[in-house]
Amino acid sequence: MEAPRFTRYQAYHKLKKLAEHPFDLAQPGNLTQRRLAHFYAEACGYRLLYGTERITDEVMNALIELADESQALAKMQRMQAGEVMNYIEGFPSERRAALHTATRDFFKKPNPSKKAAEAIRLARNELEKLKSFMAKVDAEKRFTDMVVIGIGGSDLGPRAHYLALQHLSKPGRRVRFISNIDPDDASMALKNLNLSKTLVVVISKTGTTLETLSNEQFVRAKFKREGLKPEEHFISVTCPNTPMDDPKNYVECFHFWEWIGGRYCTTSMAGGVVLAFAFGVEVFVDFLSGANAMDKTALQTDLQHNLPLLGALLSIWNRNFLGYPTTALVPYSQALHRFPAHIQQVEMESNGKQIDQHGRMLDFQTASVIWGEPGTNAQHSFYQLIHQGTDVVPLELVAYRESQCRDDLEIHGTTQQEKLLSNVFAQMIALATGQANENPNKRFLGNRPSHLLLAKELTPYALGALLAYFEHKVAFEGFIWDINSFDQEGVQLGKVLAGRIMDLFLAKKGEEGAPFPLGEALLKHLDFE
Amino acid sequence: MEAPRFTRYQAYHKLKKLAEHPFDLAQPGNLTQRRLAHFYAEACGYRLLYGTERITDEVMNALIELADESQALAKMQRMQAGEVMNYIEGFPSERRAALHTATRDFFKKPNPSKKAAEAIRLARNELEKLKSFMAKVDAEKRFTDMVVIGIGGSDLGPRAHYLALQHLSKPGRRVRFISNIDPDDASMALKNLNLSKTLVVVISKTGTTLETLSNEQFVRAKFKREGLKPEEHFISVTCPNTPMDDPKNYVECFHFWEWIGGRYCTTSMAGGVVLAFAFGVEVFVDFLSGANAMDKTALQTDLQHNLPLLGALLSIWNRNFLGYPTTALVPYSQALHRFPAHIQQVEMESNGKQIDQHGRMLDFQTASVIWGEPGTNAQHSFYQLIHQGTDVVPLELVAYRESQCRDDLEIHGTTQQEKLLSNVFAQMIALATGQANENPNKRFLGNRPSHLLLAKELTPYALGALLAYFEHKVAFEGFIWDINSFDQEGVQLGKVLAGRIMDLFLAKKGEEGAPFPLGEALLKHLDFE
Repeated sequence: MEAPRFTRYQAYHKLKKLAEHPFDLAQPGNLTQRRLAHFYAEACGYRLLYGTERITDEVMNALIELADESQALAKMQRMQAGEVMNYIEGFPSERRAALHTATRDFFKKPNPSKKAAEAIRLARNELEKLKSFMAKVDAEKRFTDMVVIGIGGSDLGPRAHYLALQHLSKPGRRVRFISNIDPDDASMALKNLNLSKTLVVVISKTGTTLETLSNEQFVRAKFKREGLKPEEHFISVTCPNTPMDDPKNYVECFHFWEWIGGRYCTTSMAGGVVLAFAFGVEVFVDFLSGANAMDKTALQTDLQHNLPLLGALLSIWNRNFLGYPTTALVPYSQALHRFPAHIQQVEMESNGKQIDQHGRMLDFQTASVIWGEPGTNAQHSFYQLIHQGTDVVPLELVAYRESQCRDDLEIHGTTQQEKLLSNVFAQMIALATGQANENPNKRFLGNRPSHLLLAKELTPYALGALLAYFEHKVAFEGFIWDINSFDQEGVQLGKVLAGRIMDLFLAKKGEEGAPFPLGEALLKHLDFE
Repeated sequence: MEAPRFTRYQAYHKLKKLAEHPFDLAQPGNLTQRRLAHFYAEACGYRLLYGTERITDEVMNALIELADESQALAKMQRMQAGEVMNYIEGFPSERRAALHTATRDFFKKPNPSKKAAEAIRLARNELEKLKSFMAKVDAEKRFTDMVVIGIGGSDLGPRAHYLALQHLSKPGRRVRFISNIDPDDASMALKNLNLSKTLVVVISKTGTTLETLSNEQFVRAKFKREGLKPEEHFISVTCPNTPMDDPKNYVECFHFWEWIGGRYCTTSMAGGVVLAFAFGVEVFVDFLSGANAMDKTALQTDLQHNLPLLGALLSIWNRNFLGYPTTALVPYSQALHRFPAHIQQVEMESNGKQIDQHGRMLDFQTASVIWGEPGTNAQHSFYQLIHQGTDVVPLELVAYRESQCRDDLEIHGTTQQEKLLSNVFAQMIALATGQANENPNKRFLGNRPSHLLLAKELTPYALGALLAYFEHKVAFEGFIWDINSFDQEGVQLGKVLAGRIMDLFLAKKGEEGAPFPLGEALLKHLDFE
């Protein structure tokens, strides 16, 4: 059997060679104003500043060759046209499209392919359903609060984006989230909540997710105990014909489809019901239009404007050629404080794979660990290691010129927003150049790469564009690595074994169950006095 | 100059040899009930299950030798006795003790050393001050809400521990946090808040932290705008004689001291004012007693009961000998959802160092990247990579037999708490053994190490013990690596350069400022239409 494609590309070998002597950002005089102006790209209101990466024109050209050899752009076109991207050749696999772009292709030049057009039609129907539903909610004034029950993609995306736009909340509207099977999650979320004024959204693509179904039952029981009828308070977001697609149990059943991965569902009704309830449908539509604009940018053949492809190439350079094992995503925006947790799933579940799309074991590294907290908080937490640790951690930075609330205070001549921006710029320079010192403890080696996505303001449109940027960056990485970014077989084994341990709990209660010696050995340790 | 000590220890070379053929957890028959019972330790109500690490008795013995050679226990004794641990030999450095253990040494057998006794006396005075202050708060009923202003250790620890015990909140008491210099953080935190009923705590060890002082001014301005007197609502937690130690500006000034690192201040008044306001002083005292019990455990010469030392040795095995670059901390407890963010700072700021305590550049890796989210949520986010990614990520797991709220629902014969426990146990087995399959996409290679800290319930005592476990685990790693875990010189350069960019903002407003060409090149990109 042939080796995987990635390590056989000509550009791969060229880049391996170039990586032996990467650009030295710490050499005095190397990081210049000219360099910072040169490594620059712009689209959808975002500016990508990447002169503080360890790259040269030669490296960028070789990376572009890599994108060409791997047909990254053609694959992105096929993805957005609705072709089957989620498959492993020669083995049983999901064999599905990955058409999350269709959930927002309502603006300029919708994708003309037949499959995409049909998906767009379905998605638009749901959006219309959402508009009517929310108009009724607004008119009837029955609901002030929303509880969202979901886990993984059905939780992280809607939650992170809700938090990012919370300053736009309609007066008196609040949203809480329940995700964990830990019963304390639901208990705490329901505390001091007026259930009679609460709309509950249950989100599960398959309608069978253990955590979500359990939490739904938990919350339904609370409604019944208060003499309320759950079927008058609950709505669902699920695929057609799942157990949750049942108007007997829900006020309304919104749909998404098997061609939308859980981690890509924020622009579907999973995000739609949450964002539209909290902020209004028009905010959700603005958000979609930003995502859609970045979708079109991802099809750009002119690399200088294809931001997600550029982002993917920089990550691949850092990961496969410079060998850095993790990436920190640090938004200098408190509103984005849970955005890294969402992108963590998007990247790590999509590209944390060990085989290529032909089922061959890989001979190179795929997704790195993605982690992060907002700046400047992160500076007071883990930046010690970023500057002076023994490992190099490339940073992906995000910042905005304006604050969202426009409420600021000038102290010593600068506003807090200006101080925030001063910090992100300062870090880029400090990490790149480092600093010599006679005291080894005050020595900074530099050559710690970073790049910045900068926009004017974190509006709904800008948030949508940011989300799609990361979605497509991840997809491009997968295309270049020749892996399937759209399945998640790796979560199955744990589920199966968890079921066997639940059977042991049942066996303790007298029910019959299959023996599972290792499970029993662990269970024994629950005997506390 | 000699090489650093760590790589010259005899045990280091023994371990390097053993790491060539680490124990194969995936070999059928290797992970047994006997093994799971054998690799087991217990202290302070916690059970450490580590049979799912890639270790043998031989490895554990060599790790103990490593602890001996590096005098890890003797250093822990010196630390708790108040000797100067925070120094770099031969170079100017902070030269301070690291005596956070004194802030909770009020129970059995306080440390008898003179320095510790004096620190304990000071800390006890503050605790008494806290008791009187809170008694007055309770009696006067002036305050329902608290706003905490701090960043880094003054934020992450108090916040994570407040969230972990939120089910114990006194009726009607709520706490909000402001940390980021981003003005939106304060704007959003103050939304719908009745300032007349609000007590504000400002926490800064030096009394000069940029973010904290700015946010304090921001919040004070809001009070004044509402005709309220800040000096009747604000309290401070700071070192004696800092600018914030000023009774003119605060209702009360609580103290901590230079011998408590910011990231180790949760058991000082920084955590005390928050936890005591929210839950009552007695809860805070229980929390301290748990931390104190683990402090004493860290002095245990019998390794089988010295949990933090065991934890440090397992981490060093995974980091320096098996070469894993990151560690995921995954508490199967929603209450601990921000605990990993706190431990991220404790570990990465303490041990993200490139020189040893003699100023020599290291020839080995120190702190790994620590990251994590609560389980089972994490299973639906990044566990795909944990099971099937190209990198191995060791897991540190935490779980409790009982839920906190004791409100649960049995579905299909098991409670949610039982399902939660089933999942954590199942993951340990699945990650270790893996699973063969003809379909390469359903193949799990196994040999992904993990260990579990298991206790009966997440009480204040258990939370204190858990915090001290990680604090001392980190300290032991530093002792064995022979680095200074108690300074943070790596955050200085960024601060200096941020000041220079603030000067550029000032220059734009007509003030005089020094030129900074790289800063100007970045600032130019803020010109949006």
